[in-house]
Amino acid sequence: METGMELYFAPLACSMASRIALYEAGGTATFHQVDTRAGRLADGSEFSLINPMRQVPVLRTDAGDTLTENAVVLLYIADQYPEAGLAPREGTDRYRLQQWLSFIGTELHKLVFIPLLDSTSNDGAREYARSRIDRRFGHLDAHLHGRDHLLDRFTVADAYLVTVLNWAGFRAIELAPWPALRAYNDRVRARPHVARAMAEELALFRAEQARPAAG
Amino acid sequence: METGMELYFAPLACSMASRIALYEAGGTATFHQVDTRAGRLADGSEFSLINPMRQVPVLRTDAGDTLTENAVVLLYIADQYPEAGLAPREGTDRYRLQQWLSFIGTELHKLVFIPLLDSTSNDGAREYARSRIDRRFGHLDAHLHGRDHLLDRFTVADAYLVTVLNWAGFRAIELAPWPALRAYNDRVRARPHVARAMAEELALFRAEQARPAAG
Repeated sequence: METGMELYFAPLACSMASRIALYEAGGTATFHQVDTRAGRLADGSEFSLINPMRQVPVLRTDAGDTLTENAVVLLYIADQYPEAGLAPREGTDRYRLQQWLSFIGTELHKLVFIPLLDSTSNDGAREYARSRIDRRFGHLDAHLHGRDHLLDRFTVADAYLVTVLNWAGFRAIELAPWPALRAYNDRVRARPHVARAMAEELALFRAEQARPAAG
Repeated sequence: METGMELYFAPLACSMASRIALYEAGGTATFHQVDTRAGRLADGSEFSLINPMRQVPVLRTDAGDTLTENAVVLLYIADQYPEAGLAPREGTDRYRLQQWLSFIGTELHKLVFIPLLDSTSNDGAREYARSRIDRRFGHLDAHLHGRDHLLDRFTVADAYLVTVLNWAGFRAIELAPWPALRAYNDRVRARPHVARAMAEELALFRAEQARPAAG
Protein backbone atom coordinates (compact mmCIF):
# COMPACT_ATOMS: atom_id res chain seq x y z
CA MET A 1 0.00 0.00 0.00
CA GLU A 2 1.41 3.37 -1.03
CA THR A 3 0.95 6.21 1.39
CA GLY A 4 2.09 9.77 1.73
CA MET A 5 3.27 9.35 5.32
CA GLU A 6 6.42 11.23 6.27
CA LEU A 7 8.58 10.06 9.16
CA TYR A 8 11.15 12.25 10.91
CA PHE A 9 13.79 10.04 12.48
CA ALA A 10 17.31 9.96 13.90
CA PRO A 11 19.51 6.90 13.35
CA LEU A 12 19.14 4.27 16.13
CA ALA A 13 16.80 6.52 18.13
CA CYS A 14 13.42 5.21 19.24
CA SER A 15 12.09 6.18 15.80
CA MET A 16 13.82 3.04 14.50
CA ALA A 17 10.82 1.11 15.80
CA SER A 18 8.66 2.90 13.22
CA ARG A 19 11.03 1.89 10.42
CA ILE A 20 10.83 -1.71 11.64
CA ALA A 21 7.01 -1.51 11.71
CA LEU A 22 6.89 -0.09 8.18
CA TYR A 23 9.22 -2.78 6.81
CA GLU A 24 7.30 -5.55 8.61
CA ALA A 25 4.04 -4.20 7.14
CA GLY A 26 5.44 -3.82 3.63
CA GLY A 27 4.56 -0.13 3.93
CA THR A 28 6.25 2.99 2.72
CA ALA A 29 6.98 6.45 4.01
CA THR A 30 9.25 9.33 3.15
CA PHE A 31 12.05 9.35 5.74
CA HIS A 32 13.51 12.67 6.88
CA GLN A 33 16.73 12.35 8.87
CA VAL A 34 17.07 14.75 11.81
CA ASP A 35 20.47 15.82 13.14
CA THR A 36 19.42 15.91 16.78
CA ARG A 37 22.78 17.35 17.89
CA ALA A 38 22.28 20.41 15.68
CA GLY A 39 18.47 20.36 15.85
CA ARG A 40 18.28 20.57 12.07
CA LEU A 41 17.06 18.68 9.04
CA ALA A 42 19.29 17.84 6.07
CA ASP A 43 18.21 21.06 4.30
CA GLY A 44 19.40 23.11 7.28
CA SER A 45 15.91 24.00 8.54
CA GLU A 46 15.09 24.02 12.26
CA PHE A 47 13.54 20.80 13.55
CA SER A 48 11.88 22.72 16.41
CA LEU A 49 9.49 24.19 13.81
CA ILE A 50 8.17 20.65 13.28
CA ASN A 51 8.34 19.48 16.89
CA PRO A 52 8.99 22.06 19.62
CA MET A 53 10.11 19.21 21.90
CA ARG A 54 12.83 18.45 19.31
CA GLN A 55 12.20 14.72 19.66
CA VAL A 56 11.84 11.99 17.09
CA PRO A 57 9.73 10.34 15.82
CA VAL A 58 7.34 12.78 14.22
CA LEU A 59 4.86 11.35 11.76
CA ARG A 60 3.02 13.47 9.25
CA THR A 61 -0.04 11.54 8.17
CA ASP A 62 -1.69 11.42 4.74
CA ALA A 63 -4.26 13.86 6.11
CA GLY A 64 -1.52 16.30 7.14
CA ASP A 65 -1.81 15.71 10.89
CA THR A 66 1.40 15.69 12.89
CA LEU A 67 1.74 12.93 15.49
CA THR A 68 4.44 12.68 18.15
CA GLU A 69 5.21 10.19 20.97
CA ASN A 70 6.71 6.90 19.87
CA ALA A 71 3.90 4.68 21.19
CA VAL A 72 1.30 6.69 19.27
CA VAL A 73 3.26 6.83 16.02
CA LEU A 74 3.66 3.04 16.25
CA LEU A 75 -0.07 2.49 16.83
CA TYR A 76 -0.90 4.78 13.92
CA ILE A 77 1.42 2.94 11.53
CA ALA A 78 0.12 -0.46 12.66
CA ASP A 79 -3.47 0.70 12.14
CA GLN A 80 -2.73 1.72 8.53
CA TYR A 81 -1.80 -1.88 7.69
CA PRO A 82 -4.34 -4.05 9.51
CA GLU A 83 -3.50 -7.07 7.34
CA ALA A 84 0.02 -7.08 8.82
CA GLY A 85 -1.34 -7.75 12.31
CA LEU A 86 1.11 -5.41 14.05
CA ALA A 87 -1.53 -4.26 16.56
CA PRO A 88 -4.77 -5.85 17.76
CA ARG A 89 -7.62 -3.60 16.69
CA GLU A 90 -9.75 -3.67 19.83
CA GLY A 91 -10.68 -5.40 23.04
CA THR A 92 -8.42 -6.67 25.77
CA ASP A 93 -5.59 -7.42 23.34
CA ARG A 94 -5.53 -3.78 22.28
CA TYR A 95 -5.19 -2.62 25.90
CA ARG A 96 -2.54 -5.29 26.49
CA LEU A 97 -0.51 -4.01 23.54
CA GLN A 98 -0.77 -0.46 24.84
CA GLN A 99 0.26 -1.69 28.29
CA TRP A 100 3.54 -2.97 26.87
CA LEU A 101 4.09 0.16 24.78
CA SER A 102 3.59 2.22 27.94
CA PHE A 103 5.87 0.00 30.03
CA ILE A 104 8.68 0.23 27.47
CA GLY A 105 8.23 3.99 27.06
CA THR A 106 8.04 4.86 30.75
CA GLU A 107 10.02 2.22 32.66
CA LEU A 108 12.77 1.49 30.13
CA HIS A 109 13.09 4.34 27.66
CA LYS A 110 12.61 7.34 29.96
CA LEU A 111 13.51 6.06 33.42
CA VAL A 112 16.52 3.89 32.53
CA PHE A 113 17.93 4.78 29.12
CA ILE A 114 17.52 8.57 28.73
CA PRO A 115 19.77 9.33 31.74
CA LEU A 116 22.29 6.74 30.45
CA LEU A 117 22.35 8.06 26.87
CA ASP A 118 21.94 11.82 27.32
CA SER A 119 25.30 13.62 27.20
CA THR A 120 23.93 16.30 29.56
CA SER A 121 23.26 13.72 32.30
CA ASN A 122 25.49 13.21 35.34
CA ASP A 123 26.98 10.38 37.42
CA GLY A 124 24.21 10.38 40.02
CA ALA A 125 21.47 10.25 37.39
CA ARG A 126 23.28 7.42 35.61
CA GLU A 127 23.71 5.49 38.87
CA TYR A 128 20.02 5.89 39.71
CA ALA A 129 19.04 4.77 36.19
CA ARG A 130 21.22 1.65 36.44
CA SER A 131 19.69 0.79 39.81
CA ARG A 132 16.30 0.54 38.07
CA ILE A 133 17.38 -2.13 35.56
CA ASP A 134 17.13 -5.34 37.59
CA ARG A 135 13.45 -5.21 38.42
CA ARG A 136 12.45 -4.10 34.92
CA PHE A 137 14.54 -6.57 32.97
CA GLY A 138 13.50 -9.24 35.47
CA HIS A 139 9.83 -8.43 34.84
CA LEU A 140 10.36 -8.80 31.08
CA ASP A 141 12.37 -11.99 31.54
CA ALA A 142 9.60 -13.59 33.61
CA HIS A 143 6.97 -12.58 31.07
CA LEU A 144 8.99 -13.83 28.08
CA HIS A 145 9.75 -17.22 29.60
CA GLY A 146 8.03 -19.64 27.21
CA ARG A 147 6.84 -16.85 24.91
CA ASP A 148 8.14 -15.79 21.49
CA HIS A 149 6.81 -12.24 21.65
CA LEU A 150 5.29 -9.80 24.15
CA LEU A 151 1.82 -10.70 22.83
CA ASP A 152 1.02 -13.91 20.94
CA ARG A 153 2.58 -12.64 17.70
CA PHE A 154 5.00 -9.95 16.54
CA THR A 155 3.59 -6.48 17.19
CA VAL A 156 4.83 -2.90 17.32
CA ALA A 157 5.62 -3.46 21.02
CA ASP A 158 8.35 -5.89 19.94
CA ALA A 159 9.62 -3.30 17.44
CA TYR A 160 9.91 -0.80 20.30
CA LEU A 161 11.49 -3.24 22.75
CA VAL A 162 14.32 -4.39 20.42
CA THR A 163 14.99 -0.74 19.59
CA VAL A 164 15.41 0.08 23.28
CA LEU A 165 17.41 -3.08 24.07
CA ASN A 166 19.79 -2.13 21.27
CA TRP A 167 20.90 0.80 23.45
CA ALA A 168 21.98 -1.61 26.20
CA GLY A 169 24.93 -2.61 24.05
CA PHE A 170 26.04 1.02 23.78
CA ARG A 171 26.23 1.21 27.58
CA ALA A 172 27.79 -2.20 28.26
CA ILE A 173 24.60 -3.60 29.80
CA GLU A 174 24.68 -7.37 29.31
CA LEU A 175 21.46 -9.34 28.90
CA ALA A 176 23.10 -12.57 30.08
CA PRO A 177 21.47 -12.47 33.57
CA TRP A 178 18.05 -12.58 31.87
CA PRO A 179 18.18 -15.58 29.52
CA ALA A 180 14.59 -15.40 28.26
CA LEU A 181 15.01 -11.70 27.49
CA ARG A 182 18.32 -12.34 25.76
CA ALA A 183 16.89 -15.17 23.65
CA TYR A 184 13.91 -12.98 22.76
CA ASN A 185 16.18 -10.12 21.73
CA ASP A 186 18.28 -12.44 19.52
CA ARG A 187 15.14 -13.96 17.99
CA VAL A 188 13.47 -10.65 17.14
CA ARG A 189 16.69 -9.11 15.80
CA ALA A 190 17.04 -12.10 13.45
CA ARG A 191 13.76 -11.27 11.67
CA PRO A 192 14.76 -10.13 8.18
CA HIS A 193 12.87 -6.83 8.29
CA VAL A 194 14.23 -6.03 11.75
CA ALA A 195 17.78 -6.92 10.72
CA ARG A 196 17.49 -4.75 7.60
CA ALA A 197 16.17 -1.73 9.54
CA MET A 198 18.89 -2.05 12.18
CA ALA A 199 21.69 -2.43 9.62
CA GLU A 200 20.51 0.60 7.67
CA GLU A 201 20.22 2.78 10.77
CA LEU A 202 23.60 1.64 12.10
CA ALA A 203 25.19 2.73 8.81
CA LEU A 204 23.44 6.11 9.00
CA PHE A 205 24.47 6.46 12.65
CA ARG A 206 28.14 5.80 11.84
CA ALA A 207 28.05 8.26 8.95
CA GLU A 208 26.57 10.90 11.25
CA GLN A 209 29.16 10.25 13.97
CA ALA A 210 31.95 10.58 11.38
CA ARG A 211 30.83 14.07 10.36
CA PRO A 212 32.01 17.11 12.33
CA ALA A 213 29.28 18.61 14.51
CA ALA A 214 27.32 21.35 12.74
CA GLY A 215 28.63 24.83 13.53
CA MET B 1 -23.67 2.18 35.51
CA GLU B 2 -22.70 -0.38 38.13
CA THR B 3 -19.56 -2.38 37.45
CA GLY B 4 -17.42 -4.87 39.24
CA MET B 5 -14.16 -3.07 38.53
CA GLU B 6 -11.55 -3.15 41.28
CA LEU B 7 -8.89 -0.48 41.50
CA TYR B 8 -5.65 -0.83 43.48
CA PHE B 9 -4.37 2.61 44.40
CA ALA B 10 -2.07 4.51 46.75
CA PRO B 11 -3.09 7.95 48.04
CA LEU B 12 -1.94 10.83 45.79
CA ALA B 13 -0.07 8.42 43.48
CA CYS B 14 -0.77 8.46 39.75
CA SER B 15 -3.70 6.14 40.45
CA MET B 16 -5.58 9.23 41.68
CA ALA B 17 -6.23 10.01 38.00
CA SER B 18 -8.38 6.88 37.82
CA ARG B 19 -10.40 7.98 40.85
CA ILE B 20 -10.94 11.35 39.16
CA ALA B 21 -12.01 9.62 35.94
CA LEU B 22 -14.48 7.40 37.81
CA TYR B 23 -16.01 10.33 39.69
CA GLU B 24 -16.26 12.42 36.51
CA ALA B 25 -17.98 9.51 34.76
CA GLY B 26 -20.35 8.81 37.63
CA GLY B 27 -18.86 5.33 37.75
CA THR B 28 -18.07 2.97 40.55
CA ALA B 29 -15.28 0.62 41.50
CA THR B 30 -14.08 -1.16 44.59
CA PHE B 31 -10.97 0.67 45.80
CA HIS B 32 -8.15 -1.30 47.43
CA GLN B 33 -5.54 0.84 49.16
CA VAL B 34 -1.94 -0.31 48.77
CA ASP B 35 0.73 0.53 51.32
CA THR B 36 3.52 0.99 48.81
CA ARG B 37 6.16 1.43 51.55
CA ALA B 38 5.39 -2.02 52.92
CA GLY B 39 4.28 -3.50 49.60
CA ARG B 40 1.09 -4.79 51.23
CA LEU B 41 -2.66 -4.48 51.05
CA ALA B 42 -4.81 -3.62 54.06
CA ASP B 43 -5.33 -7.33 54.79
CA GLY B 44 -1.54 -7.82 55.00
CA SER B 45 -1.23 -9.71 51.70
CA GLU B 46 1.68 -9.06 49.33
CA PHE B 47 0.92 -6.55 46.58
CA SER B 48 3.61 -8.15 44.38
CA LEU B 49 1.25 -11.11 43.92
CA ILE B 50 -1.11 -8.75 42.10
CA ASN B 51 1.53 -6.67 40.30
CA PRO B 52 5.13 -7.94 40.30
CA MET B 53 6.25 -4.37 39.45
CA ARG B 54 4.60 -3.29 42.75
CA GLN B 55 3.15 -0.20 41.06
CA VAL B 56 -0.29 1.34 41.19
CA PRO B 57 -2.74 1.56 39.53
CA VAL B 58 -3.85 -1.98 38.88
CA LEU B 59 -7.34 -2.44 37.51
CA ARG B 60 -9.20 -5.72 37.66
CA THR B 61 -11.90 -5.59 35.02
CA ASP B 62 -15.38 -7.08 35.12
CA ALA B 63 -14.04 -9.89 32.96
CA GLY B 64 -11.27 -10.61 35.48
CA ASP B 65 -8.41 -9.22 33.37
CA THR B 66 -5.70 -7.34 35.21
CA LEU B 67 -4.52 -4.10 33.58
CA THR B 68 -1.50 -2.05 34.61
CA GLU B 69 0.12 1.17 33.33
CA ASN B 70 -1.71 4.36 34.21
CA ALA B 71 -2.41 5.48 30.62
CA VAL B 72 -4.05 2.14 29.83
CA VAL B 73 -6.12 1.97 33.01
CA LEU B 74 -7.39 5.49 32.23
CA LEU B 75 -8.31 4.58 28.65
CA TYR B 76 -10.10 1.47 29.88
CA ILE B 77 -12.15 3.38 32.45
CA ALA B 78 -13.01 6.09 29.91
CA ASP B 79 -14.14 3.46 27.41
CA GLN B 80 -16.55 1.92 29.95
CA TYR B 81 -18.47 5.22 30.17
CA PRO B 82 -18.62 6.54 26.60
CA GLU B 83 -21.45 8.92 27.49
CA ALA B 84 -19.06 10.80 29.81
CA GLY B 85 -16.81 11.75 26.89
CA LEU B 86 -13.58 11.19 28.82
CA ALA B 87 -11.81 9.77 25.74
CA PRO B 88 -12.51 10.13 22.03
CA ARG B 89 -13.40 6.70 20.68
CA GLU B 90 -11.45 6.72 17.42
CA GLY B 91 -9.74 8.69 14.71
CA THR B 92 -7.21 11.47 15.05
CA ASP B 93 -8.67 12.65 18.35
CA ARG B 94 -8.05 9.22 19.87
CA TYR B 95 -4.38 9.32 18.81
CA ARG B 96 -4.14 12.89 20.08
CA LEU B 97 -5.44 11.82 23.50
CA GLN B 98 -2.95 8.98 23.63
CA GLN B 99 -0.20 11.40 22.63
CA TRP B 100 -0.89 13.50 25.72
CA LEU B 101 -1.18 10.44 27.96
CA SER B 102 2.20 9.29 26.64
CA PHE B 103 3.79 12.72 27.04
CA ILE B 104 2.63 13.00 30.65
CA GLY B 105 3.71 9.44 31.45
CA THR B 106 7.14 9.60 29.85
CA GLU B 107 8.29 13.23 29.96
CA LEU B 108 6.73 14.33 33.25
CA HIS B 109 5.93 11.32 35.42
CA LYS B 110 8.97 9.12 34.77
CA LEU B 111 11.68 11.55 33.61
CA VAL B 112 10.98 14.44 36.00
CA PHE B 113 8.92 13.33 38.97
CA ILE B 114 10.03 9.79 39.81
CA PRO B 115 13.63 10.86 40.56
CA LEU B 116 12.27 13.80 42.59
CA LEU B 117 9.80 11.72 44.63
CA ASP B 118 11.63 8.41 45.07
CA SER B 119 13.35 8.23 48.47
CA THR B 120 16.05 5.95 46.95
CA SER B 121 17.06 8.64 44.45
CA ASN B 122 20.17 10.84 44.82
CA ASP B 123 21.23 14.48 44.38
CA GLY B 124 22.54 14.01 40.84
CA ALA B 125 19.38 12.28 39.69
CA ARG B 126 17.26 15.01 41.27
CA GLU B 127 19.36 17.74 39.64
CA TYR B 128 19.04 16.08 36.23
CA ALA B 129 15.28 15.71 36.70
CA ARG B 130 14.89 19.39 37.62
CA SER B 131 16.89 20.41 34.55
CA ARG B 132 14.21 18.74 32.39
CA ILE B 133 11.33 20.85 33.75
CA ASP B 134 11.65 24.07 31.74
CA ARG B 135 11.22 22.64 28.28
CA ARG B 136 8.37 20.33 29.32
CA PHE B 137 6.36 22.84 31.33
CA GLY B 138 7.06 25.39 28.58
CA HIS B 139 5.66 22.99 25.99
CA LEU B 140 2.49 22.52 28.04
CA ASP B 141 2.19 26.27 28.68
CA ALA B 142 2.39 27.06 24.96
CA HIS B 143 -0.20 24.40 24.15
CA LEU B 144 -2.61 25.52 26.89
CA HIS B 145 -2.48 29.20 25.94
CA GLY B 146 -6.06 29.94 24.92
CA ARG B 147 -7.25 26.40 25.69
CA ASP B 148 -9.31 25.13 28.63
CA HIS B 149 -8.11 21.50 28.38
CA LEU B 150 -5.46 19.44 26.62
CA LEU B 151 -8.08 18.42 24.03
CA ASP B 152 -11.27 20.39 23.34
CA ARG B 153 -13.00 19.07 26.47
CA PHE B 154 -12.08 17.42 29.78
CA THR B 155 -10.56 13.98 29.21
CA VAL B 156 -8.55 11.42 31.16
CA ALA B 157 -5.38 13.23 30.00
CA ASP B 158 -6.43 16.18 32.16
CA ALA B 159 -7.07 13.79 35.07
CA TYR B 160 -3.51 12.49 34.67
CA LEU B 161 -1.92 15.93 34.27
CA VAL B 162 -3.46 17.49 37.42
CA THR B 163 -2.44 14.37 39.34
CA VAL B 164 1.17 14.83 38.24
CA LEU B 165 1.18 18.61 38.74
CA ASN B 166 -0.04 18.02 42.30
CA TRP B 167 3.41 16.51 43.02
CA ALA B 168 5.09 19.79 42.04
CA GLY B 169 3.81 21.32 45.27
CA PHE B 170 5.45 18.54 47.30
CA ARG B 171 8.82 19.49 45.78
CA ALA B 172 8.48 23.29 45.89
CA ILE B 173 8.18 23.58 42.11
CA GLU B 174 6.21 26.76 41.39
CA LEU B 175 3.99 27.02 38.32
CA ALA B 176 4.17 30.83 38.30
CA PRO B 177 6.67 31.01 35.39
CA TRP B 178 4.07 29.23 33.21
CA PRO B 179 0.85 31.25 33.59
CA ALA B 180 -1.30 29.26 31.15
CA LEU B 181 -0.27 26.02 32.85
CA ARG B 182 -0.93 27.49 36.29
CA ALA B 183 -4.37 28.79 35.27
CA TYR B 184 -5.17 25.40 33.70
CA ASN B 185 -4.14 23.60 36.89
CA ASP B 186 -6.29 25.89 39.05
CA ARG B 187 -9.25 25.49 36.66
CA VAL B 188 -9.13 21.70 36.53
CA ARG B 189 -8.59 21.35 40.29
CA ALA B 190 -11.72 23.45 40.84
CA ARG B 191 -13.94 20.90 39.08
CA PRO B 192 -16.11 19.38 41.83
CA HIS B 193 -15.24 15.75 41.03
CA VAL B 194 -11.53 16.55 40.83
CA ALA B 195 -11.63 18.52 44.09
CA ARG B 196 -13.47 15.69 45.83
CA ALA B 197 -11.00 13.04 44.64
CA MET B 198 -8.00 15.14 45.66
CA ALA B 199 -9.43 15.95 49.11
CA GLU B 200 -10.21 12.30 49.80
CA GLU B 201 -6.78 11.12 48.73
CA LEU B 202 -5.02 13.88 50.68
CA ALA B 203 -6.84 12.71 53.82
CA LEU B 204 -5.85 9.09 53.15
CA PHE B 205 -2.26 10.19 52.47
CA ARG B 206 -2.04 12.08 55.76
CA ALA B 207 -3.49 9.13 57.68
CA GLU B 208 -0.92 6.84 56.07
CA GLN B 209 1.97 9.20 56.88
CA ALA B 210 0.80 9.38 60.49
CA ARG B 211 1.01 5.61 60.91
CA PRO B 212 4.32 3.97 61.81
CA ALA B 213 5.89 2.08 58.90
CA ALA B 214 4.85 -1.55 58.78
CA GLY B 215 7.40 -3.85 60.39
